[in-house]
Amino acid sequence: MYREGLLVVISGPSGAGKGTLLNLLRDLGGDSIRFSVSATTRKPRKGEVDGVNYFFKTKEEFKLMIENDELFEWVEYCDNFYGTPKKYVEDSVKEGYDCFLEIEVEGAAKVMKAYPECVSVFILPPSFEELRRRIEKRGTEDVEVVNKRLDRAREEIAYASNYDYIIVNDDLKDAVENLRCIIRAEKLKSGRNREFLHQFQQA
Amino acid sequence: MYREGLLVVISGPSGAGKGTLLNLLRDLGGDSIRFSVSATTRKPRKGEVDGVNYFFKTKEEFKLMIENDELFEWVEYCDNFYGTPKKYVEDSVKEGYDCFLEIEVEGAAKVMKAYPECVSVFILPPSFEELRRRIEKRGTEDVEVVNKRLDRAREEIAYASNYDYIIVNDDLKDAVENLRCIIRAEKLKSGRNREFLHQFQQA
Repeated sequence: MYREGLLVVISGPSGAGKGTLLNLLRDLGGDSIRFSVSATTRKPRKGEVDGVNYFFKTKEEFKLMIENDELFEWVEYCDNFYGTPKKYVEDSVKEGYDCFLEIEVEGAAKVMKAYPECVSVFILPPSFEELRRRIEKRGTEDVEVVNKRLDRAREEIAYASNYDYIIVNDDLKDAVENLRCIIRAEKLKSGRNREFLHQFQQA
Repeated sequence: MYREGLLVVISGPSGAGKGTLLNLLRDLGGDSIRFSVSATTRKPRKGEVDGVNYFFKTKEEFKLMIENDELFEWVEYCDNFYGTPKKYVEDSVKEGYDCFLEIEVEGAAKVMKAYPECVSVFILPPSFEELRRRIEKRGTEDVEVVNKRLDRAREEIAYASNYDYIIVNDDLKDAVENLRCIIRAEKLKSGRNREFLHQFQQA
């Protein structure tokens, strides 16, 4: 049966609970799961480890990565570059790890196009009201800021139907179980097991 | 999210363990699962209940079902008719039950064509050797009969790649968990939740 890992693209508006969900999945899934590691040109902060928190790069190195098409996507922000290197994700998948790529909707669309065999999951909050509550809880009470984030959430959610699966993150335990089942089911797809089926029939 | 049940088509060679697998799934899944009930013109045996073990029909009734295209498939065997009525399956799915249709490969192909929204799963034995052992265990030691069944199994397994998913029934507990995850994941597909997504965005 299917032995490679899966490239799993995860998107969803800020406040949908992607981070909590993925951390819980890792706690449960253990050794078979990896998260994509971003590259950046900003200096490491205290305690940050190269290859774990980020791949720390010079601007020259980063620009070379862009030129050589080694990044899924990149942005420049506050005079520093941030991006998602392909190599770590591709290597992880080949080694049998399910590699999760948490990425915003525009970047995700590019990845899905370049890797049609990836699995894409959109995480939804239970409702816009609940999303508003979660965003407000995160500290800001500036109505304008909250509304801006909700507008952005609305824009992002318009992309949800482009994803293979949607998960409503209402009950965290349910949501993790849903994600776990998606990964498990995907590996059973006959399209991912053509080689296995061929060998089975020859035996 | 998706509220209807799923029509789940299950095939696999005799000896793959489909029956055991489905019974265990029902024991675990409880009230949300139904199995397709066949129609037959043979007389009920002691203890058999109409609508549970079979739908018992007269030959006239059965022929009318054929004429009215009310059967997924049917065969005549030892002067009796056997077939799979559509109505029970369709009603079950509408009522929110996941309805399992255990059916041989040719019939399954027809169902998949008529109901592209169905989920199809092919159950494989761990190997042909193990399949031989299982068939021999079932009572017959006539080498010719065993070989005939293995030949038929080989024919059937050639269809496996037409199914959405394949499950190797090696460890029964694993196999049931795989089937459970397939059902769960399928309901999270964005394609099955277009209406939900539309309403979510309007809210």
